Amino acid sequence: MRRYLEPGPIALVSSAWRGETNIMTMGCHTVMEFTPALLGCMISAGNHSFELIRNSGECVINLPTTALTDEVVGIGNTTGGAVEKFERFGLTAEKARAVKAPLIRECHAAFECRLHDDALVERYNFFIFEMVKAEVAPQPKHPETLHYTGDGAFMVSGKIISRRARFRPEML
Amino acid sequence: MRRYLEPGPIALVSSAWRGETNIMTMGCHTVMEFTPALLGCMISAGNHSFELIRNSGECVINLPTTALTDEVVGIGNTTGGAVEKFERFGLTAEKARAVKAPLIRECHAAFECRLHDDALVERYNFFIFEMVKAEVAPQPKHPETLHYTGDGAFMVSGKIISRRARFRPEML
Repeated sequence: MRRYLEPGPIALVSSAWRGETNIMTMGCHTVMEFTPALLGCMISAGNHSFELIRNSGECVINLPTTALTDEVVGIGNTTGGAVEKFERFGLTAEKARAVKAPLIRECHAAFECRLHDDALVERYNFFIFEMVKAEVAPQPKHPETLHYTGDGAFMVSGKIISRRARFRPEML
Repeated sequence: MRRYLEPGPIALVSSAWRGETNIMTMGCHTVMEFTPALLGCMISAGNHSFELIRNSGECVINLPTTALTDEVVGIGNTTGGAVEKFERFGLTAEKARAVKAPLIRECHAAFECRLHDDALVERYNFFIFEMVKAEVAPQPKHPETLHYTGDGAFMVSGKIISRRARFRPEML
């Protein structure tokens, strides 16, 4: 989770409630704890997904790569109230292992999440999830992720540099 | 704030309390609201900076570029209890405009922050700040930022792609 989500990529959040599924594009999230694996996320109450996630207490946080740039933009600019997003954007809903929300097969990684703490949901639309299962594609090791910089533009992930030798072991 | 912090870069957090200053490296943060500009951040209680920020209710969130990679790693692997970090890492403390914590002159941008909500500080070491002033260098337009991927490695920010024409105006 840390390796893929701490660098701040755009995610696709899939959810399900009473037979309905949806996908939203999410740019604001942060790792909050490593053990248990907690992730804090902004899911605005204006999103159709908000109610599905609030009611089910579950979602899957999927990691798209640049291969899905058009889908990321399209999903972020349509509403699940009017559009069945898996069908509209040609994505495959796959059964998750620990939650009822579906994974998105075309994404590089999928983190199955259960609501851990809703203390800030009303005030800030801020959900704290526990990541309960992770599926990650074995290749490529460093997928090209999208990082939103506002105004319709994305920064694409660049080269990897290591400074491992300069870290204290307990800081790795 | 959104343009620089939403993509998930490593930040340097500077703080001051009763004549003492400190700097810490921070990788976990998220934009929480645009108006007012709210930012949620993990500042572990094990950090020397925690007490300075808790007591003063202020900090500056500075944006380093790859020019400061060694400083970012060094600051993250030393403790302010033993080291005066501005001096040790050759950084310049500059007077901020709205808070007592100093800016770091060598960084690309500095966001002066005041504690907005401490509801999750005890449970998760999660601070919600309001950004009250921003100083951003005019050039370069897209600085090379560092994004931590765990295990001593960083992803460096890559190329910028725009999909502005495909956004609904209210989503920009």
